[in-house]
Amino acid sequence: MSVANGRALLAMPGPTNIPDRVLQAMMRPAEELSSQPILDLTGSLLNDLRLVFRTKGETFLYAANGHGGWEAALTNVLSRGDKVLVLASGRFAIGWGEMARFLGADVEVLAGSWRAAVDPVAVEERLRRDTNHEIKAVLMVQIDTASGVVNDVQAVRKAIDAAGHPALYMIDGVASLGCMPFEMDEWGVDVAMSASQKGLMTPPGLAFAAASEKALQAHPHATMRTPYWDWTSRMSPPLYMKHCGTPPEHLMFGLRAALDMVLEEGLEAVWRRHALLAGATHAAMTRWAEGQVLTCNIEEPSQRAPSVTTILVQGDPSSITDYARTVCGVTLGLAIGDLAGKAFRIAHMGHVNAPMVLGSLSAVEMALQAQNIPHGAGGVAAAITHLSQSA
Amino acid sequence: MSVANGRALLAMPGPTNIPDRVLQAMMRPAEELSSQPILDLTGSLLNDLRLVFRTKGETFLYAANGHGGWEAALTNVLSRGDKVLVLASGRFAIGWGEMARFLGADVEVLAGSWRAAVDPVAVEERLRRDTNHEIKAVLMVQIDTASGVVNDVQAVRKAIDAAGHPALYMIDGVASLGCMPFEMDEWGVDVAMSASQKGLMTPPGLAFAAASEKALQAHPHATMRTPYWDWTSRMSPPLYMKHCGTPPEHLMFGLRAALDMVLEEGLEAVWRRHALLAGATHAAMTRWAEGQVLTCNIEEPSQRAPSVTTILVQGDPSSITDYARTVCGVTLGLAIGDLAGKAFRIAHMGHVNAPMVLGSLSAVEMALQAQNIPHGAGGVAAAITHLSQSA
Repeated sequence: MSVANGRALLAMPGPTNIPDRVLQAMMRPAEELSSQPILDLTGSLLNDLRLVFRTKGETFLYAANGHGGWEAALTNVLSRGDKVLVLASGRFAIGWGEMARFLGADVEVLAGSWRAAVDPVAVEERLRRDTNHEIKAVLMVQIDTASGVVNDVQAVRKAIDAAGHPALYMIDGVASLGCMPFEMDEWGVDVAMSASQKGLMTPPGLAFAAASEKALQAHPHATMRTPYWDWTSRMSPPLYMKHCGTPPEHLMFGLRAALDMVLEEGLEAVWRRHALLAGATHAAMTRWAEGQVLTCNIEEPSQRAPSVTTILVQGDPSSITDYARTVCGVTLGLAIGDLAGKAFRIAHMGHVNAPMVLGSLSAVEMALQAQNIPHGAGGVAAAITHLSQSA
Repeated sequence: MSVANGRALLAMPGPTNIPDRVLQAMMRPAEELSSQPILDLTGSLLNDLRLVFRTKGETFLYAANGHGGWEAALTNVLSRGDKVLVLASGRFAIGWGEMARFLGADVEVLAGSWRAAVDPVAVEERLRRDTNHEIKAVLMVQIDTASGVVNDVQAVRKAIDAAGHPALYMIDGVASLGCMPFEMDEWGVDVAMSASQKGLMTPPGLAFAAASEKALQAHPHATMRTPYWDWTSRMSPPLYMKHCGTPPEHLMFGLRAALDMVLEEGLEAVWRRHALLAGATHAAMTRWAEGQVLTCNIEEPSQRAPSVTTILVQGDPSSITDYARTVCGVTLGLAIGDLAGKAFRIAHMGHVNAPMVLGSLSAVEMALQAQNIPHGAGGVAAAITHLSQSA
């Protein structure tokens, strides 16, 4: 039997659940591409992205996915032959680094674990040894959706400063923007990028970048620049130049609704909601782990991401994800990269509330019980208690 | 007084009118990005794009706008320093050439007119003089949305062959794909590109490319390649690699519905519909032109595009476009480039039928009458007669 019919629940780490309000905002005709409504919309989105990135710097919006956002971030500030230091903590910084290598950068990966955050001490040590300042940029993800880790962006900034190193500090915020504190200016991030389909609750197809003054000063000298991503033309008036061609209007209509929702709730409140729901997930996970079959991939609790939890499974994780999908109508995330076939993921990001996250956790607990997978009892009960005490 | 309220009618050359069926297809949750439904959707879209481009070659789908499609087409087959010949006939081939120059190509523009199609004789003559075959690619648009011209893709192919020249033949089909015959393989086109928001009736944010065997052979040697656009990774299994990251799912859901509509009507029938509606527009235009104030920008009738008509105006064209918008609820196209302030455009492409085009033409005729702009009478009547006799 199945109890799956009902509203589909996405508990995978992107694309995430899209609010009806966002979908409905896209249900309309286009506008003339250089009309005042589109120019106003463009301006309002770029301004509100500043609020979300917490920057007074420049923001950019691309018709592209997150990988396009990676390419935009790299090509605008780097030159072929530049040395780039990638801080590994799972899959995604590595992937960004592979893209930099393709573009002609000399990429060094600072080895990291799939089970822990980037170590700021190791970053400082490596940068101190770069006495000639050959490293032009340091690449890190705030949250790695594969491993479920959250890196400490501010601590790594302090490590870079402690080493007295001038490299550009570049952050991938795809799985974190709108899910947790990010303070681009206060933390000295030079280039940040993100995409529409995770915390920002909009269908995939929009990428974002934000640039500090230091990044904008590096930009004119970058030899990787290509016209589609190029900041210079996108910063030049008139405003329709912001899109290098036709604006992705419908995704922009959707993003406008999504940003309205974020700003109406209040960005800090959105962050707190994510922290609470992540706490509930971790509370359930802690109980389940007592069975010695499920383990939270990230060992140190403070390094567990507020948007996604990666759970190692002794045995085949697809027995859990298949059950959740077919019997309960919940789509959990499959593990990728080094963890493929060894783990699954529960996302708790974007348009998610208590019943959604508790529902996803309940589907996992049903799968564990139905299949006699050893687990500590009372995971969902612990999650409920966590929320009722904290909310 | 205004008679504008009612369904908004877009008669601008992109984004075009989006069918309700396409919008409704987008009104749904996302799917897990490497799930079977998304893999199947990806495969079906790439296959059906082959039907629309009329090729057995490779097709590619990007989260990007048309300018991104331009960059994808160029970077995958060209190297920095390559000489590129741009065949001018308005704004868009020039723009594509500017992009090639930014990417490091040595760009030569074969001068053309804003009022006529590319002359195949001039192309042959220029290529014959390139005795060392330094020109690596020839760039042309099939329809220039600025000037309203349609170039003869097959005739230019014959000119290239007559010159015995091996350059890659690259065609921008943004304003023509799905609006008129395009035979990629039969006409020997090596790289074709297009986008979602014109003939293909889908919101902006998707770009397409198609590559011949010859283009795929040139690809490995191209030094302009960048990871986001790169064909090699997009052709590598597994199928989710086709997207270089997250697929633009909702736009793909929309495109699926749009391609279903095109294939249900029949691609040739879609072309004929466009030809009939363009004929109606030209019939009206011919009458209006008798007043000596309005002139069809493209002088030779056989060179007038089946998707958009550019109309020169003695005086201020905004008096016509403003009236159409505010009094009638019809958005006409403003002129761009060399024609800005001197012309307006009527699009008849994509999701358009007799009442829509006749309605747009009627709004123009109302504007001409209301403002006493000299024009021959009976333009709309001539359009009706044209359709009633031809349809």
